[in-house]
Amino acid sequence: MIPLNFNKSIDGLLPAIVQDYQSNEVLMLAFINKLAWEKTLETGKAHYWSRSRNSLWLKGETSGHVQKIHQILVDCDDDTVVYKVEQIGGAACHTGHRSCFYRRLDGDRLVAEKEKVFDPAQVYGKK
Amino acid sequence: MIPLNFNKSIDGLLPAIVQDYQSNEVLMLAFINKLAWEKTLETGKAHYWSRSRNSLWLKGETSGHVQKIHQILVDCDDDTVVYKVEQIGGAACHTGHRSCFYRRLDGDRLVAEKEKVFDPAQVYGKK
Repeated sequence: MIPLNFNKSIDGLLPAIVQDYQSNEVLMLAFINKLAWEKTLETGKAHYWSRSRNSLWLKGETSGHVQKIHQILVDCDDDTVVYKVEQIGGAACHTGHRSCFYRRLDGDRLVAEKEKVFDPAQVYGKK
Repeated sequence: MIPLNFNKSIDGLLPAIVQDYQSNEVLMLAFINKLAWEKTLETGKAHYWSRSRNSLWLKGETSGHVQKIHQILVDCDDDTVVYKVEQIGGAACHTGHRSCFYRRLDGDRLVAEKEKVFDPAQVYGKK
């Protein structure tokens, strides 16, 4: 297994950039620790470390919208990775947008550019 | 100025994903604090916070290979940004590669896929 430099950060977490494997659109960023990295390589499905829940997170475990790994890139310092994925369900963001980066800066405001792919209330249930 | 959630991380640093504004290739990832964010917005050139030097870092300050900001995207949690940039000099990585992510995972090894754009010894001087 390719070792990453998990000692680089204070909390042992490294950023994983998630890109659509076909369009190269950046869908999200999440963090990985050694366990999440190993689980991703073992299963071919993107796993992260949830900082809010402090637990391993299989992306899509609630919604079924998993991310199938097509390619993994590692940076020059072994402390950041790119996951090129097929996003099942079409949307990576919990808001229902395809990408978490659905807002662009326009002067002093943020403009939402893209339509939602799904209704979060239907996918996750009303909360 | 658009506020980001700098309290999200232990060290007050947020990840900035850097993409080529035309090809959408991910060139690098670096971290920003409030000062780097403000300087980027003020100047239109990508600034980061260097964790190794613990100081503000204008990308390209040594090599002249600055990153001109074409668009900025902000994620759903206000804790990660995408800088879509024009990379002056053609290469973002200190190794001379266009992207820091020039290696892909192939089974249990990393394969360097892309040629160098420049010779680091010529750009930064021999060390």
